[in-house]
Amino acid sequence: MSKIELNKRQEQILNIVKDNGPITGEQIADRLNLTRATLRPDLAILTMAGYLDARPRVGYFYTGKSGSQLLTDSLKKIVVGDYQSIPVVIMEDVSVYDAIVTMFLEDVGTLFVVDKSSHLAGVLSRKDLLRASIGKQELTALPVNIIMTRMPNITVCKKEDLLIDAAKKLIDKQIDALPIVKEAEQGLEIVGRLTKTNITRAFVALADEE
Amino acid sequence: MSKIELNKRQEQILNIVKDNGPITGEQIADRLNLTRATLRPDLAILTMAGYLDARPRVGYFYTGKSGSQLLTDSLKKIVVGDYQSIPVVIMEDVSVYDAIVTMFLEDVGTLFVVDKSSHLAGVLSRKDLLRASIGKQELTALPVNIIMTRMPNITVCKKEDLLIDAAKKLIDKQIDALPIVKEAEQGLEIVGRLTKTNITRAFVALADEE
Repeated sequence: MSKIELNKRQEQILNIVKDNGPITGEQIADRLNLTRATLRPDLAILTMAGYLDARPRVGYFYTGKSGSQLLTDSLKKIVVGDYQSIPVVIMEDVSVYDAIVTMFLEDVGTLFVVDKSSHLAGVLSRKDLLRASIGKQELTALPVNIIMTRMPNITVCKKEDLLIDAAKKLIDKQIDALPIVKEAEQGLEIVGRLTKTNITRAFVALADEE
Repeated sequence: MSKIELNKRQEQILNIVKDNGPITGEQIADRLNLTRATLRPDLAILTMAGYLDARPRVGYFYTGKSGSQLLTDSLKKIVVGDYQSIPVVIMEDVSVYDAIVTMFLEDVGTLFVVDKSSHLAGVLSRKDLLRASIGKQELTALPVNIIMTRMPNITVCKKEDLLIDAAKKLIDKQIDALPIVKEAEQGLEIVGRLTKTNITRAFVALADEE
């Protein structure tokens, strides 16, 4: 990955191809009053950097990709499955007290709740549990399905989704974690957990990878 | 930003310069039994992409940067101040109950605690408050300075720190937020808050920026 600063001539070439492509190297050279040989390095750079594409007997055409779109292309190779965590799951009749204990034992910020057939039924965040804990109810007698976020209000993702799209969901919905699911016959099976910690790890890895 | 796939000849040039740099274009051409003119596009690409640098009368030398290190270079322009949030601060004699209420009113996951001279004294996470809330104590009578993480165990960052370094701290210390501080005469002044949400926003912005 590298940042390409285009020079003035390369910008001119890009504009000519944008407006007139497909266009041959000779035609571009004509418009700039330069020889084909002079342009060769610039055309090579623009092609290798992905701004232009060339087809034999057709000429150069604009790929429509700006420099930063090309970064996007590489971010778009990272999927949820590359950074997911193991899900921590509880049954929907468990008490809020036991859910809090599970959260501490497993050291997670979000629990997923399943029904009797092991399908996704709800999500419990630390915020949900904290809210319940300052309420008037007896936590050992309050089942989690009273306070959990339930379907269809749960935002989910799949293992093969782009990490960037999952990150957008976390931001847009203002939540800390997404269940990673697989469609089953009677509902959604929970196969993973994706959190802002996973996204932070991916961000750090972008800088670390050699 | 763009991904450059080097061709075989460019890889050869890179290796020659790595082993023999600084080296002139003519000398590289000699070693490859090619003319200087033939190499010109390749040398231009390698230089523009940041793999090589050239100095007049000296020749080409290897910058030591791999393709992904060049991405790192661009990530290294993002600082904490570009993505920070506003800090939410409470006094150290406030009750845990009031801290929980403040957390909900302000909709944050971490509170910073200050002493009488407004300097950083502690940090309170949702996890700290949840732990206290299932304890035996009366939350309205328990001051936050009993349960908070206190100096010198608080990990901090500064506005001008690299976002990538702050993200590493969040991962390494397994915490959700860092206070952004400024050194004052008698302690640390809190000027911002950096969370995994901010890092997730930065990650999403990498793909969005035009």
